[in-house]
Amino acid sequence: MKQIESHQCHGGELQVWEHASTSLSCDMRFSIFLPPQVKDGVCPAVTFLSGLTCTHDNFTSKAGAYGVAAELGLIVIAPDTSPRGDDVPDDVDSYDFGKGAGFYINATQTPWAKHFQMEAYIVKELRSLIADNFPIDSERQGIMGHSMGGHGALTLFLKHPDLYQSVSAFSPIVAPSQVPWGQKAFNGYLGDDEIEWTKHDACHLVESSQKKNIEILIDQGLGDNFLREQLKPELFEDACAKVEQKLNLRLQDGYDHSYFFIQSFIGDHLRHHAQNILK
Amino acid sequence: MKQIESHQCHGGELQVWEHASTSLSCDMRFSIFLPPQVKDGVCPAVTFLSGLTCTHDNFTSKAGAYGVAAELGLIVIAPDTSPRGDDVPDDVDSYDFGKGAGFYINATQTPWAKHFQMEAYIVKELRSLIADNFPIDSERQGIMGHSMGGHGALTLFLKHPDLYQSVSAFSPIVAPSQVPWGQKAFNGYLGDDEIEWTKHDACHLVESSQKKNIEILIDQGLGDNFLREQLKPELFEDACAKVEQKLNLRLQDGYDHSYFFIQSFIGDHLRHHAQNILK
Repeated sequence: MKQIESHQCHGGELQVWEHASTSLSCDMRFSIFLPPQVKDGVCPAVTFLSGLTCTHDNFTSKAGAYGVAAELGLIVIAPDTSPRGDDVPDDVDSYDFGKGAGFYINATQTPWAKHFQMEAYIVKELRSLIADNFPIDSERQGIMGHSMGGHGALTLFLKHPDLYQSVSAFSPIVAPSQVPWGQKAFNGYLGDDEIEWTKHDACHLVESSQKKNIEILIDQGLGDNFLREQLKPELFEDACAKVEQKLNLRLQDGYDHSYFFIQSFIGDHLRHHAQNILK
Repeated sequence: MKQIESHQCHGGELQVWEHASTSLSCDMRFSIFLPPQVKDGVCPAVTFLSGLTCTHDNFTSKAGAYGVAAELGLIVIAPDTSPRGDDVPDDVDSYDFGKGAGFYINATQTPWAKHFQMEAYIVKELRSLIADNFPIDSERQGIMGHSMGGHGALTLFLKHPDLYQSVSAFSPIVAPSQVPWGQKAFNGYLGDDEIEWTKHDACHLVESSQKKNIEILIDQGLGDNFLREQLKPELFEDACAKVEQKLNLRLQDGYDHSYFFIQSFIGDHLRHHAQNILK
């Protein structure tokens, strides 16, 4: 593991690391913010999963998260969105499939399966790597994300009830089996058996969730171009209502899909995580 | 004038505009954040001048300024750092001269003089354009900047005592006549008469300042790679002491020259401006 960057930030430290990933068979980068409280011992952590076309850097540079994280004593981890490198297959004409579009699932189809194992990477490999190398309280972790990464946060939270104590999302893809972005990705990575898709769809997973007492926080901008075709938060609202999953879905007037939206509410999300992780 | 972007942000609105600049003879872009308070009338403003290699976008995306600006009711303007476009001469091998490196002065030398009139652009043209088109209280304005833009903020504040009620800087070039970045730029844009250079050097300008009662706020990271060769804040400290100019020079342990440094203290700077502008 090699340190690529290190910056003092809000009294803590923002670091970028590169490591050889065994689950993805390529080199990967992630950023980690260590709040000033790590001087006194381990801290809880939140992982932010980014959206289509992003690397670790978009959230790291643009979300404005570290002031509040420093105040709350939260470690904040930002992984990349897909495997990387010349050996990794890609669909160069698509921004929504291949590199930059790993969808936080384990691909089963050729040629994707060899590298596109983003679920294994996030919940096993990166988690262990960070537990072994940073002053983290591994039993106290939350997960959040944006758009494709909101899908990632919701599904990984629901699939791995032992790993995360809190979850939130900005403009998440809540029903990938029912919208073009998700259908294209699932068809490519998982094949055309739609039953298989439901195992990675938050609207389906919430039915079998063991986490109904933990409130899910979602912010969705009403000025978001992708709202009606790709995001459809009402489907998740219905799914949660059906099984009495606690949900705080906040529809934010005028906000779009950008990091200007994320920076406006990231403080609320970090406070939501701190409250749930520490309770 | 054409709107390029518009995003709801922290209850206000971040806009990016493009306009044909007469002083620079090219098209220019700038960003402007309008806080929620513009609904109730005009608001005071702060202009942020960026450093070498930057456009309006670096500050806009990375500084995390708009949450505090919304709280304080401040408009925040981020101009570009030089003229742009295929017609504008450049020194393609230099990151510190030509495009991205206008130094906020009016060039007198061929071939630069035709386009590199950044002082006129900031203090006259852009100022008028914004006064005419946005809900701004033009009599209440501050100026701040980073590195080359810190030089810009300090010198424009000292040269134009009627235009700005407050000033602050992050890691500014305070003595361009005495450091490589400034010497290269001044030699290229102004010629080799070093007497001419002193008219654009904060350490010289502070001597004739009419603003001695307004405290200048400067944050300088002690982990900044450029500290000893290019920035030399001690020269400005000495110059201010000599003429009893109020200065709050904060040396920040461990911080570097990046936007992670700026985002850590931008809130303090905006509060400094609000206090001085509104008093």
